[in-house]
Amino acid sequence: MSETPTKYAFGMIGLGTMGRNLLLNMADHNFAVAGYDKDASKIDLLGKEGQGKPVEGFTNLSDFIASLETPRAIMMLVPAGKIVDSVIDELTPLLDKGDMIIDGGNSYFLDTTRRDAELEAKGFHFFGMGISGGEEGARFGPSMMPGGDKEAYQKMKPVLEAVAAKVDGEPCVTYIGPGASGHFVKMVHNGIEYGIMQLLAETYDILKNGLGMDNQAIQQLFTKWNEGRLQSFLVDITKDIFAFIAPNTDHLLLDDIKDEARAKGTGKWTSQVAMDLQTPLGTVDTAVSMRDMSKYKALRVQMEGLYGPRPNLGSANKEQVLEQLEQAFYFSMIISYAQGMHMLANASVEYKYELNLAEIAKIWRGGCIIRSKFLNDIYNAFKHQPDLAHLLLDAEVQKQIQESVVGTRALLAQTVAAGLATPAYAASLSYFEALRTGRMPSNLIQAQRDYFGAHTYELIGHEGVFHTQWAPDHEDAANKQDTHEGEGYVKHEEPVIPNK
Amino acid sequence: MSETPTKYAFGMIGLGTMGRNLLLNMADHNFAVAGYDKDASKIDLLGKEGQGKPVEGFTNLSDFIASLETPRAIMMLVPAGKIVDSVIDELTPLLDKGDMIIDGGNSYFLDTTRRDAELEAKGFHFFGMGISGGEEGARFGPSMMPGGDKEAYQKMKPVLEAVAAKVDGEPCVTYIGPGASGHFVKMVHNGIEYGIMQLLAETYDILKNGLGMDNQAIQQLFTKWNEGRLQSFLVDITKDIFAFIAPNTDHLLLDDIKDEARAKGTGKWTSQVAMDLQTPLGTVDTAVSMRDMSKYKALRVQMEGLYGPRPNLGSANKEQVLEQLEQAFYFSMIISYAQGMHMLANASVEYKYELNLAEIAKIWRGGCIIRSKFLNDIYNAFKHQPDLAHLLLDAEVQKQIQESVVGTRALLAQTVAAGLATPAYAASLSYFEALRTGRMPSNLIQAQRDYFGAHTYELIGHEGVFHTQWAPDHEDAANKQDTHEGEGYVKHEEPVIPNK
Repeated sequence: MSETPTKYAFGMIGLGTMGRNLLLNMADHNFAVAGYDKDASKIDLLGKEGQGKPVEGFTNLSDFIASLETPRAIMMLVPAGKIVDSVIDELTPLLDKGDMIIDGGNSYFLDTTRRDAELEAKGFHFFGMGISGGEEGARFGPSMMPGGDKEAYQKMKPVLEAVAAKVDGEPCVTYIGPGASGHFVKMVHNGIEYGIMQLLAETYDILKNGLGMDNQAIQQLFTKWNEGRLQSFLVDITKDIFAFIAPNTDHLLLDDIKDEARAKGTGKWTSQVAMDLQTPLGTVDTAVSMRDMSKYKALRVQMEGLYGPRPNLGSANKEQVLEQLEQAFYFSMIISYAQGMHMLANASVEYKYELNLAEIAKIWRGGCIIRSKFLNDIYNAFKHQPDLAHLLLDAEVQKQIQESVVGTRALLAQTVAAGLATPAYAASLSYFEALRTGRMPSNLIQAQRDYFGAHTYELIGHEGVFHTQWAPDHEDAANKQDTHEGEGYVKHEEPVIPNK
Repeated sequence: MSETPTKYAFGMIGLGTMGRNLLLNMADHNFAVAGYDKDASKIDLLGKEGQGKPVEGFTNLSDFIASLETPRAIMMLVPAGKIVDSVIDELTPLLDKGDMIIDGGNSYFLDTTRRDAELEAKGFHFFGMGISGGEEGARFGPSMMPGGDKEAYQKMKPVLEAVAAKVDGEPCVTYIGPGASGHFVKMVHNGIEYGIMQLLAETYDILKNGLGMDNQAIQQLFTKWNEGRLQSFLVDITKDIFAFIAPNTDHLLLDDIKDEARAKGTGKWTSQVAMDLQTPLGTVDTAVSMRDMSKYKALRVQMEGLYGPRPNLGSANKEQVLEQLEQAFYFSMIISYAQGMHMLANASVEYKYELNLAEIAKIWRGGCIIRSKFLNDIYNAFKHQPDLAHLLLDAEVQKQIQESVVGTRALLAQTVAAGLATPAYAASLSYFEALRTGRMPSNLIQAQRDYFGAHTYELIGHEGVFHTQWAPDHEDAANKQDTHEGEGYVKHEEPVIPNK
C-alpha cells in the first residue's frame, strides 16, 4: 500500500470516540483509511489526533465513498437501532455490488439477521461485528467478533488482524460464523460482563459492609487478587477505581458516585434470548435484575428505614472470610463463563451459526472487557474437546470448581445467615447445585400442571405423554387414593402443543 | 331469558375442555349459549355433557353466528398464536359493527394490543380476557381478567359475574382496564404461579433429600400447611399429589413422573417483559430458569456423576428445620406476590392500564391457580393504600416478613452450606435483602462502566452526568492517584443515550 494513496483501504462512518480510535489504530498499522461524519468538529479532532498518519476525514458522503478502494470495506460505528438503518439507506445508493458494510456497534442480533438478508439480496456483503474493549481497546487493540459472508471476510482480514489485540502474538479476531453470529457472540460476551461486574459489586459490599474494611484495604485486596488466578481486566480496573481520589478531596471518587446503575440493554437481551433458547443463565439474569433494582433508590431507602439496620458479618474470622471470598469469586466467575458458553453452544445449533467455542474463548483472552487468565482454561477445554457439552464437564475446570465450591458454600452460608445481599453469588451457586442434580424435584411441577391444567406428563420408562384425573370431582378432591388405585394410566391422545 | 330461545346470549368458538366447560358453566347459570367447533366429536361431547341445559353446538360458522343475540358476544378459546388471528379473519366478515369478540386464551399481550387496535378500527369491540382455574375452574367457577372497551364490558358483565368463582359472595371477575391489560394481568398471574410452584418443588427436595422424609410424612406436612396461613390452591393440590398412588402399584404416581418440566411460555414472557419494564422479578426468573434446567437431563446425570453424591442436611434438627421451612415458604410466597404486584404497578404506568391492584388481588382470591389465604392481605393492603409503592411497605405485611425472614435465613444458611439446590428460595431472599439496602454497591458498576466505556456516572448532590479519564493512558493505568488529584470533574456534554 502506498504511503500517499489516492484511494483508501478502509472507511469508517461515525467518528465518535470508538470510530475515531479504531480508525487511528488502523492508520497506526499503516493502512490508509478514511472517516466520515456529518459533524465537522469530529473531522477536526480526527485531523489533530491523526496528524502524520494516513487518515483523512470527510463531511461529504459521496466524496468519502469515492475515496475508497473497490470493493469497498466500510464500517459503521453509530448508535444501535434506527440510526443504523438510516445510515444503510443513505449509503447503499452510492455503493457498488460486492462492497462490504460492517456494523461495528452493539446491534440487536435479530436486526442484524434482517439487515444481512436485505443487503445480501441487493448484492452487498454485510457484517455484524462485535467490538469489545471500549475506547482504549479501539485505539490500541480490541477483541473483534465479525459475522457474515466468509469469503468477503478474507478481504478485511489483514486490517482486522493488524489492529486487534494480540495474545501470545495471535490476534484477538476470528471469523465467527454466518449471519448475525458476530453480534450474537458479542451480546453473550456482554452478558458475561454483566455477571462478573455484579459479582465484583457484591464483593465490594461484603468487604465494606460485611467486614467493615476501608477503601485502602479493599484496594490492596483487589491488587492481590489481580496477581493470582483471578487476574482479569475487570479486577484490574476495580483495583484502580479503589485508588482514584475525587478531585479536590481526600476520599475516593467512587464514594461520590450514585448507586443507580444504568445499562444499554445488551445484558437484558442476553437474558431474554437465553430464555427463548431455554438456557439457564441465572448469574446474568440476576445481574440484570440488580441493575434494575438499583434504580428504585427512594423505595430502597424507605425499605431500609422499615427493615434496617444494615447487616454485617459480626464476629466472623476475617482472614477466613477473605479466603472463602477469593474462592467464591473464582467459582462464580467460572459459572458466569460456563453459562455464556452453554448459551453459545445452544445458539449455534438453533441459528446454525457453526460457532467454534475454542476460537471464541481464544479471541476473548485479549482486548475485551471479560479478558482474564481463566479464559485460557476455557480455550484449552474446548480446543481439546470441541464437542464438550458444558464447560463444567472439563476435567481441569472440574478440579477448580471442586476446590472453590467449598469456600463458596461456607461464605454464602454466612452472608445468608447475616442478611447481607449476595444475589449473583447465590444465583451462581444455585445454578451449580441444580445442574449437578441428576433427579430434580421438577416431577412435582409436572404433576401440578397436569392436575390443574391437564398439561400431561411423561413417565420414566414409557413413551408418550399421559394425563391423570387427579381429583375425581371438585367436591371430592381429598380422597383420591381409594378412587384411583387400580385404574390404568390414561394415555393422552390429543396433540400436545409443543413447548415453544 | 326464555328456556327455549331462538337466539343465544353468548357464543363460544373452540370446544376443547376449557371452552366446553365454560359454556356448560354458563348454561348451569341459565344463560342460553351456543358453541362452535369444526370438530363434530366436540359437538357430540357438548351435547352429552349439556343434556337438559340451554346449550346448542354448531359445526357451521354462519349458523352459529346467526343463532346469537345482537350485539353478539363471542368468546374464542383456541390455542394462542396464529390460530387466534385466523379465527378472527374467518369471523369478522360475518359480524356486525358493535359485536364483541373475546379472546379467552393465553395470548401474548402485545398480540392483543395489535388485535384490539385492528378490531376497534373496524367497529368491533375486542377483549383480551385472562381465565385462570384450569378445567375445574372453567366448569365450576374461574377467576377472569377481562380487558378492553369499558362500556362494552357492561353487556358481558352479568354472564361473567354469574359463572365466576365467588369469595364471600363476590364474583372473581372485574373490569381490568383498556387494551391488553387483561392478558397482561393474566401473564403476571402465571409468572407468580411459576414462582410458587418452583418453591414447592424445592420444598419437596429439602424434605425428601435434605431431611430424608418419606412421601407419607411429606403428605402430612403439606396437609398441615394447608390448614394454616399457607392455605392455598397450590399447596392443596400438592398434598393431594402426595396421596395419589400410581395405578396397580403401591407407590406414588409422582415417583414415576419424569423430572423434565415443560412450560407454555407465559412465565418466560413475564420475566422477559419484567426486564423491559426494569422490574426485578428474581423469583419468577429463577423458576423459568429451573424449568429450563430440568430439560438437560443427560447433562445433569453426567454432572452428578462428576460432582456427586447428592447432599443432605445431615444431623440437622428436623423439627427446627420444618419450622424454618414453613417460615421460608411463607416468606418466599409473599415475595413472589410482591414482585408480581410491583410489575403490575409499573406496567400500569408504562401502558396506561389504570390497574386497580386491590381489585386484582380481590378477584385472585378465588377460582385461580394462585388463590391463597394471603391474597386477602394483599387485597387489604392495596384497598386501604391504593398508591402503595410496594407490597412490602404495608405495615401488616411488614410484620409477617419480619417474623418469617428469620427462619428463612436460618434455613437457607443450612441448605447452602450443605450444597442443596434451593434456587428460588435463594432468589426470593436475595430480592428482599437487596431491596432493603438503602445504598447498593452499584456505584462500583457505574465507575467500571465509565472507566472502560465512557458511559458516564451521576454524582450524589450534583445535577448532570460526568465522565472521568480514570486511566491517563494505557501504559500508565496503575498510578492515577497522583495524576488526577486536583483536577476537576469533567461534566459530560454529549447527549447520553437513554437507558432503554
